[in-house]
Amino acid sequence: MINLRGKDILDGAQFTREEVDHIMAVADEMRARLRDRHSLDLMTGYVLATLFFEPSTRTRLSFEAAMHRLGGGVIGFSSAESSSTAKGETLADTIRTVDQYADIIAMRHPQIGSAREAAAVAEAPILNGGDGAGQHPTQALLDLFTIRQERGQVDGTTIALVGDLKNGRTVHAGVEIYKHYRCKLIMVAPEQLRMPADLVTKLRSYGVEVEETADLEGALAKADVLYMTRIQKERFADPVEYERLKNSYILTREMVERLQPNVTVLHPLPRVNEIATDVDSLPGAGYFRQVKNGVYVRMALIALVMGKI
Amino acid sequence: MINLRGKDILDGAQFTREEVDHIMAVADEMRARLRDRHSLDLMTGYVLATLFFEPSTRTRLSFEAAMHRLGGGVIGFSSAESSSTAKGETLADTIRTVDQYADIIAMRHPQIGSAREAAAVAEAPILNGGDGAGQHPTQALLDLFTIRQERGQVDGTTIALVGDLKNGRTVHAGVEIYKHYRCKLIMVAPEQLRMPADLVTKLRSYGVEVEETADLEGALAKADVLYMTRIQKERFADPVEYERLKNSYILTREMVERLQPNVTVLHPLPRVNEIATDVDSLPGAGYFRQVKNGVYVRMALIALVMGKI
Amino acid sequence: MINLRGKDILDGAQFTREEVDHIMAVADEMRARLRDRHSLDLMTGYVLATLFFEPSTRTRLSFEAAMHRLGGGVIGFSSAESSSTAKGETLADTIRTVDQYADIIAMRHPQIGSAREAAAVAEAPILNGGDGAGQHPTQALLDLFTIRQERGQVDGTTIALVGDLKNGRTVHAGVEIYKHYRCKLIMVAPEQLRMPADLVTKLRSYGVEVEETADLEGALAKADVLYMTRIQKERFADPVEYERLKNSYILTREMVERLQPNVTVLHPLPRVNEIATDVDSLPGAGYFRQVKNGVYVRMALIALVMGKI
Repeated sequence: MINLRGKDILDGAQFTREEVDHIMAVADEMRARLRDRHSLDLMTGYVLATLFFEPSTRTRLSFEAAMHRLGGGVIGFSSAESSSTAKGETLADTIRTVDQYADIIAMRHPQIGSAREAAAVAEAPILNGGDGAGQHPTQALLDLFTIRQERGQVDGTTIALVGDLKNGRTVHAGVEIYKHYRCKLIMVAPEQLRMPADLVTKLRSYGVEVEETADLEGALAKADVLYMTRIQKERFADPVEYERLKNSYILTREMVERLQPNVTVLHPLPRVNEIATDVDSLPGAGYFRQVKNGVYVRMALIALVMGKI
Repeated sequence: MINLRGKDILDGAQFTREEVDHIMAVADEMRARLRDRHSLDLMTGYVLATLFFEPSTRTRLSFEAAMHRLGGGVIGFSSAESSSTAKGETLADTIRTVDQYADIIAMRHPQIGSAREAAAVAEAPILNGGDGAGQHPTQALLDLFTIRQERGQVDGTTIALVGDLKNGRTVHAGVEIYKHYRCKLIMVAPEQLRMPADLVTKLRSYGVEVEETADLEGALAKADVLYMTRIQKERFADPVEYERLKNSYILTREMVERLQPNVTVLHPLPRVNEIATDVDSLPGAGYFRQVKNGVYVRMALIALVMGKI
Repeated sequence: MINLRGKDILDGAQFTREEVDHIMAVADEMRARLRDRHSLDLMTGYVLATLFFEPSTRTRLSFEAAMHRLGGGVIGFSSAESSSTAKGETLADTIRTVDQYADIIAMRHPQIGSAREAAAVAEAPILNGGDGAGQHPTQALLDLFTIRQERGQVDGTTIALVGDLKNGRTVHAGVEIYKHYRCKLIMVAPEQLRMPADLVTKLRSYGVEVEETADLEGALAKADVLYMTRIQKERFADPVEYERLKNSYILTREMVERLQPNVTVLHPLPRVNEIATDVDSLPGAGYFRQVKNGVYVRMALIALVMGKI
């Protein structure tokens, strides 16, 4: 019997496969229940706080839309400057304060471990919306939900993860979830931005087949799902090396059509230029459907940790 | 049969007279229905996104108040800094993202044509809350609603438009609507800030009587409605010229009482100093009633494009 | 018969004891009514505007949570930069504008007297959430509510007020309320930051026993309630003097246990370092319960001035 009531959602590694399957099923139910109406009333009278110490359109608005679709209210802030942090307040004090106002808290903070620190002091469940280069579990769950929807199932899928795998919290959270589904993972990154070795070792010891490469085209040819992320210029010591790699990690329509027309392309967004806009109209370009799925998955998580399902 | 369901509201030129009359009638109805209660429930369960890439008290809060008065919820941002634009995301991607979260989108953006660009990619109706020096159609409609309310009717009214007519998106949108009502338009602007010639030509070819002048007092003496806007210092090459003109475009109580005591004074606000504060208590000072009318007109527009009326 | 309908809440001095007692009783009722549900529906369909010209986590979110718990909606802004103030609009014009949108307005502004200025032009009740070094009456009322709850009663309590008593709007508003309850007040401040002399004189002429000292330990030994506030470095001409005093105004667990184990410690928050974090787990550390009480008291004030109780 799965019960997430009162649980914090902090990282991808916290879930069993049964829990992930349950979250997926509840997200399915949310989508079905919204099909012929605009909102439910599961959370009427409840308050979600969205505490965003870093700018974010997507994750903040997605949580807020999810709460509104559930019938609840929202308070919060969208930058550290408009919070008491500007007066020198610690994160723990800010969280303890907001804990008096809200029934559930979604947060993004630049520091790794900040969501866990918040969970240690808050009575309200904490939903980690990104902690620096750490984790981003709600994104990982909505990614999984999208793969399941686009491909029919997740088990046995070959997923190529592309870009900055060293610092990407989305992929760090994602692999912890994919490991439950016998996915084959192809990790496509330049040498400087490879997935942390301990995480690769952990995945292999769990029985996951992992291939590491720097070659996007080769990976695309073998992938069912291509999960693109940004290459960040500031991570490179050598600008020439950056320029060379940057261009090899731009996905074009020509590449998809030539190498793997049936691939599903995902991206946590925002993108800068790593997916050419003419890819958008391909049937496998799933990244805006992925955005919509974020609302269903976050509705499911809110309802589950609040004990409403 | 007028039907605005699913329509975007992008500029003043898009409307027929019948559509404008219908919007006015629905705004009347909104006002009447709010008379003995604080909100309606036409939009319960729906979500409006307010995307303000430029600061605005009035327009953003007016849209949000309108949505709340209709029973709906609101998500959004009030500056570009707290959005993903700061990470290099294009407007089209931001809009496609928010389109997954909201049922209707109101936006302000510094670039001319931005609202039209948004409408091209969004399924949700777009309400243009100002696109640079382009258009501001919801303001134009609430201005018309106010003239109708303050003067009893719009047909045949003499309206003097004063200030920066070159860059003023409010007046650009306004004249496209006034043209349906056989208004006489007096355009009062310094040489540098005259209404674009092609717009004047278009109005005349439509049969509108247009007078252009730089003389505020002369225009006031003939006007039923005096529509003031700001003169913007940064538009002048010669600071001496600016000082001379700026002072001739400040409306004082003495001028109103001497030249046209029955004039209706409007202003899209915020004002800096172009209407002296002792004008505020004159019976014809309609600019704060104009603010209130903005809520009724925006309620009407939201309800109409969502197919709720 | 107490009736606060339509009243502004501007400063601590405006209340009679009967009014304060009534507000406390209504706040008690709010807490009781929330015990087995998450929100009431006293303000359904109403709109609160929160206008914060200065950053604030606590006060803004507390007002917003209070309105949501009452079933109402919220519009507003959390910094002057995202308002029309950035375009040169006066406070009076901003307030007159928002008055057209909202049923009730809560505001914070850096200038003393700003809330009173707003109240002079608004029809909607104004709730002063802090006007520079002036007043902060809703904080004072929630402080009183907390003392009453933590100590059983307020009458006859010895309250030590510690820190910057010269500029602290919280304590300025507080003493105007404590004076009704025969409290003994110990004012603990460095010479440069003493409570304004005219306020002390006023309290004494009202019959309040006031002791002024710079000695925190001596005051703690005699106090039932220790009300800590921040010492602000920028108020000192001599940095050596600042360092000396700053350290004498840091409350530690050792001091509480040695001098007055039963003391109730309060703080308007945010704190920087003036209460050591190991004080937090003492039974008398009431500052996070104080935060929660803010919601009940603000719910009471909103409901009272809107005539819903």
